[in-house]
Amino acid sequence: MKFASYTSNGERHYGAVTDTGMIALRQDHPQWSTLFEAVCAGGLGTLAQSAQSRAVTHTDFSYDMVLPDARRILCVGVNFPDRNAEYKDGSAQPKYMSLFPRFASGFTGHDRPLIRPPESDQLDYEGEVAIVIGKGGRRIAQADAYDHIAALTLCNEGTIRDWVRHAKFNVTQGKNWDRSGAMGPWLVPFTDAAQLDDARIITRVNGEVRQDDLLSRMMHPIRREIEYISTFMTLAPGDIIVTGTPTGSGARLDPPQFLKPGDTVEVEVAGIGILRNTVEDEG
Amino acid sequence: MKFASYTSNGERHYGAVTDTGMIALRQDHPQWSTLFEAVCAGGLGTLAQSAQSRAVTHTDFSYDMVLPDARRILCVGVNFPDRNAEYKDGSAQPKYMSLFPRFASGFTGHDRPLIRPPESDQLDYEGEVAIVIGKGGRRIAQADAYDHIAALTLCNEGTIRDWVRHAKFNVTQGKNWDRSGAMGPWLVPFTDAAQLDDARIITRVNGEVRQDDLLSRMMHPIRREIEYISTFMTLAPGDIIVTGTPTGSGARLDPPQFLKPGDTVEVEVAGIGILRNTVEDEG
Repeated sequence: MKFASYTSNGERHYGAVTDTGMIALRQDHPQWSTLFEAVCAGGLGTLAQSAQSRAVTHTDFSYDMVLPDARRILCVGVNFPDRNAEYKDGSAQPKYMSLFPRFASGFTGHDRPLIRPPESDQLDYEGEVAIVIGKGGRRIAQADAYDHIAALTLCNEGTIRDWVRHAKFNVTQGKNWDRSGAMGPWLVPFTDAAQLDDARIITRVNGEVRQDDLLSRMMHPIRREIEYISTFMTLAPGDIIVTGTPTGSGARLDPPQFLKPGDTVEVEVAGIGILRNTVEDEG
Repeated sequence: MKFASYTSNGERHYGAVTDTGMIALRQDHPQWSTLFEAVCAGGLGTLAQSAQSRAVTHTDFSYDMVLPDARRILCVGVNFPDRNAEYKDGSAQPKYMSLFPRFASGFTGHDRPLIRPPESDQLDYEGEVAIVIGKGGRRIAQADAYDHIAALTLCNEGTIRDWVRHAKFNVTQGKNWDRSGAMGPWLVPFTDAAQLDDARIITRVNGEVRQDDLLSRMMHPIRREIEYISTFMTLAPGDIIVTGTPTGSGARLDPPQFLKPGDTVEVEVAGIGILRNTVEDEG
């Protein structure tokens, strides 16, 4: 079962994704006006039951950012060993993870263009798995961490690379450009640890593999991310953690290869799906 | 006119603050279930009109974080000249500002305790003015920037200082502890540039002045903050910018003086008010 946020005929919906189209679910669940609200209410199971008895309602639609009204999105930086080495600053494996928030406005949906702004020609890709919290908690133990995950999705954590380095601290202004990244295509309910533990993530640009790694190689595994983040803030249903990108972003190639209009970027994890985006200059 | 979010008898309200108590406004405006929703709808003028014909409804209440459902809060770091010098790294005045998001969950309300967690004894204060956006926009010119501000409030941008330095980049985990900071007591509508341009901000701990500076000395003035931030993200009504703290946080004193249970911190700006908080260990 897969759940998506989408627009059809100018109206926002959410529904279940099938091979032949979308099954609209919002009308049957007026208590949840968005997929985010359904997640916050622990409603994915209810939605799955509804979808089983329904026929496809929309074949002409556009995917939206999978949870466009998500309130707290935390991204983990520099979380694969080769990526840390890329920084060439002699630093050993860091004891703590680097974290930065992104606003939902920075993400578009599957099959929509990432937007390159006129201020920069350094739009870069970062393929990642994102987890959606289903059960809140504070100071969650690593052993219990997976119990708090409701669903998985994919993220192209698109970055305006030169703006990341504008400030003495913090990457905020390179990471929050309108629609510079994407999240989707859909949510896949998290039911089995192997969905994460055995996952291999691949990012392609115009069909060429740029990132290819195993989540099991993360320096700070997802269980640890949940433990660490929930130390300082009470995690709540609907919170999203973008878990970190492998080596191979465009900035690290020699010479660097940033995205340009007409490019197509795909982020793929077997069992979750393929998040595909084109690139356009801001119009 | 001043507007606050508050709790009375276990129920959340918003209303207008008077010298004798609170005038509840939510019942008369069912279209806005929170003060944040009223701000997003440009409703502060309507609320002010309602309040003029109403009597005090609550005298027994607790202030909440002024906009507890705020979605995007951006803080400006290292924005006063002496503060930059405090870093003693030989850096000249930075060309661009440092920015980091905070989640609303990191803030409590006026007259409530800041929470010091068991993981650290380095809870620190930072007194700041926060602006609330009333009119959205992208690439806003400095000359027009003030037209986009709906209201002002005060912020104690409380920080767990040792956790700020956990990661190679980003201050996220030191800046987002549950209820480690405060915002309020109330919103003051922004009607006159002098409210910001002539403002002097003072922070006191147990009555002793620790920070005392003029907003006019900011390295990146508020007009520039709005211009810069709106370059990369479309500002929307309800967005909050926490504009930067003067020199004198506890970490910079010799020896450092962090907050401890029983302390009282006040952030004051004439014409806005006094944000007062005690400190408690997490219970």
